[in-house]
Amino acid sequence: MARIVAVDTYDVRFPTSRELDGSDAMNPDPDYSAAYAILRTDRGDGAAGHGFCFTIGRGNEVCVAAIDAYAPLVIGLDVDEVLADLGGFARRLTGESQLRWLGPEKGAGHMAVAALVNAAFDLAGRVAGKPVWRLLAEMSPEGIADLADWRYLGDALTRDQAVELLRRAEPGRAERAKRLTEHGYPAYTTTPGWLGYTDEKMVRLSKAAVADGFAMIKLKVGGDLDEDRRRLRLAREAVGPDLPIAVDANQRWDVPEAIAWMRALAEYDPYWIEEPTSPDDVLGHAAIRRGVAPIRVATGEHCANRVMFKQLLQAEALDVLQLDATRVGGVTENVAILLLAAHYGVPVCPHAGGVGLSEAVQHLAMFDYVAVSGSMEGRMIEYADHLHEHFTDPTRIRGGHYQAPDSPGMSNELHAASLTAHLFPDGSEWAAEAGA
Amino acid sequence: MARIVAVDTYDVRFPTSRELDGSDAMNPDPDYSAAYAILRTDRGDGAAGHGFCFTIGRGNEVCVAAIDAYAPLVIGLDVDEVLADLGGFARRLTGESQLRWLGPEKGAGHMAVAALVNAAFDLAGRVAGKPVWRLLAEMSPEGIADLADWRYLGDALTRDQAVELLRRAEPGRAERAKRLTEHGYPAYTTTPGWLGYTDEKMVRLSKAAVADGFAMIKLKVGGDLDEDRRRLRLAREAVGPDLPIAVDANQRWDVPEAIAWMRALAEYDPYWIEEPTSPDDVLGHAAIRRGVAPIRVATGEHCANRVMFKQLLQAEALDVLQLDATRVGGVTENVAILLLAAHYGVPVCPHAGGVGLSEAVQHLAMFDYVAVSGSMEGRMIEYADHLHEHFTDPTRIRGGHYQAPDSPGMSNELHAASLTAHLFPDGSEWAAEAGA
Repeated sequence: MARIVAVDTYDVRFPTSRELDGSDAMNPDPDYSAAYAILRTDRGDGAAGHGFCFTIGRGNEVCVAAIDAYAPLVIGLDVDEVLADLGGFARRLTGESQLRWLGPEKGAGHMAVAALVNAAFDLAGRVAGKPVWRLLAEMSPEGIADLADWRYLGDALTRDQAVELLRRAEPGRAERAKRLTEHGYPAYTTTPGWLGYTDEKMVRLSKAAVADGFAMIKLKVGGDLDEDRRRLRLAREAVGPDLPIAVDANQRWDVPEAIAWMRALAEYDPYWIEEPTSPDDVLGHAAIRRGVAPIRVATGEHCANRVMFKQLLQAEALDVLQLDATRVGGVTENVAILLLAAHYGVPVCPHAGGVGLSEAVQHLAMFDYVAVSGSMEGRMIEYADHLHEHFTDPTRIRGGHYQAPDSPGMSNELHAASLTAHLFPDGSEWAAEAGA
Repeated sequence: MARIVAVDTYDVRFPTSRELDGSDAMNPDPDYSAAYAILRTDRGDGAAGHGFCFTIGRGNEVCVAAIDAYAPLVIGLDVDEVLADLGGFARRLTGESQLRWLGPEKGAGHMAVAALVNAAFDLAGRVAGKPVWRLLAEMSPEGIADLADWRYLGDALTRDQAVELLRRAEPGRAERAKRLTEHGYPAYTTTPGWLGYTDEKMVRLSKAAVADGFAMIKLKVGGDLDEDRRRLRLAREAVGPDLPIAVDANQRWDVPEAIAWMRALAEYDPYWIEEPTSPDDVLGHAAIRRGVAPIRVATGEHCANRVMFKQLLQAEALDVLQLDATRVGGVTENVAILLLAAHYGVPVCPHAGGVGLSEAVQHLAMFDYVAVSGSMEGRMIEYADHLHEHFTDPTRIRGGHYQAPDSPGMSNELHAASLTAHLFPDGSEWAAEAGA
């Protein structure tokens, strides 16, 4: 019998603020970071599970401390029992009565749960010899439904309704998996649109996005209205009349301001407005959606948990749901969110970028296509061209499409050299900065 | 010129689980704890500010790590500048762009902000020679309004409307402050009602609550319906026909279950149902309120921030708003919440108990009475008889009323000996446990 024998944690940071990659109206100088965990086992094959939660620099050590706080619940568990009941594994963490006080199910503590749950899925994929999207997509409807924590969802979707929904999608699974592996999953790119980039860089990258076959580009807005108009005009000239352009305010506005600002940008035909206000403001997003229609409203990367997503759907506050791989409690809670979205008929376009978010979240979108919503219509995964080279199983983009991973696991693993060099504050990458 | 020269942090825990104090349907064995911070200054009089955030044991170290993460923003600040703009001080913390990613404004990171903001108010009270309730109640309407962060509140209440509301309450301030210092502020008690107590202990403490003049008692429910019925019957016999009895489910139920369970308890005439479901579920609380009327719905101790409270009020989901001194970002955010509650005409009955929550939160309720709502009608502060002896300025209850603090500061300071003995894991109280 094999056990989980250790949870090793690492504070890993990348100095992205040097180039203003990732700069927007609320986040002027992020250093993309990961509170990174490895579940070590004593299996004969040495299999381990890798997971992380994403932050933007300072505070990454708080998430590491939170992973360490959950580690005693994980160490000593029987690997086969964990892999046979990954939903139970996740609920064991989220239900820990004293740690639950730090949320419940939100903030640094919940992001730590994401790191550990995703590491367990990475381990499950490695043991099964399958990428996690395929592992999930081959489970029974009941098995998938049992991953989710149904507490607090009963007024929107029950486990039985979810099983029924999954059964309806069962017949086409094999066909869709085949199509996915052949053609990939559509991507849009945020690479051109960071607020800190010059016009020249933005235009050049926008043109490149068209040439590369991306389904959409996205621009950061919300700093200055005239600037936003000017940049939207330049971007439209660069990409031509047909490619959708989304805009992202990164929570900059109050509700009335969001409506006024987006009406002022309506003539540029933005495909969606992302994070127009506080990610906690369900009623605010609903009001904004009514106020800016037909412009779509998108949010989710900062949405704390399934209860918040449930309400965004119940309140008809969303046109596009942007789940994040490591903000909520990992794969299990994201399965619940995918089921809710399918039930309400809202397309999921996952948040990605950062460090490792694209690698992780592609598994969820691909599982959704094969086994949940069964559709790619109106769906694309965000893509930003940063830091993929640090992963052992990096995203592969071809013709503007994510290619389906075929390596076992969840693609969460950093190269050992990258991990070591970017340890904060003592890795060579940071020691060099301190010396500069 | 004096500066803040250090932020000293402490992981302080009390072994309350030994007696099942604080046990309820979701929290079977809490160890009441404080992630505790002292703002040290180089003022000639040695003035320091004490603050903490409350947790229930494991994970307290995560909040300490979060306070440490914010400390560099505080160390070196000019004391007079901080005290002259406490709203700006708080927004400096909540607006820190990288740390904000851990929330925004929720979970362990936001509780850390509460500890630091409350410590700054404690310092302000000491420097002014006034208890914080009085310090606040003597500020101008504009000065009070400038404490709040108005971002995300514009669709519910603007700063100008808040100033107007505060102006209307100005004429009676002196009279109400006098009445408060003479008669105190009504309290209700949770001491009898913990789920882990025997019937005999519950009945004895319920009778004592009547004799002591408390305005209400509260029982924990949600474990077993027949048990809840039996305990409510016993409690009613103990307290007589007139004293209100509230019940508290500590987030145990889904929405349909909450409605069904409370209808089954309606014959016992509960004064309110507290935390019937997820604290994040605004729409769920609204549905429950419609479903269980005329039983009141109360929540707030786990409500993450002002945006969530705003929506609970907008959705008419609450009859009673239970703010907490250290869950949201401290005094400044609680000022915003008190203003929202007054604007919507919803009474505030603060969450207290734990360790130090009564000491801290009484200042907010008393400020509300003197300068915001101007009323004690339907209002009481929770009280639980635990751990007050560890504070240098403990709550004083007389005739079931909190007596207004008159010592300078926010009553947050632990006795040095208590702090040292309860340091986790090396203080004498814990070392003794480890040796036992």
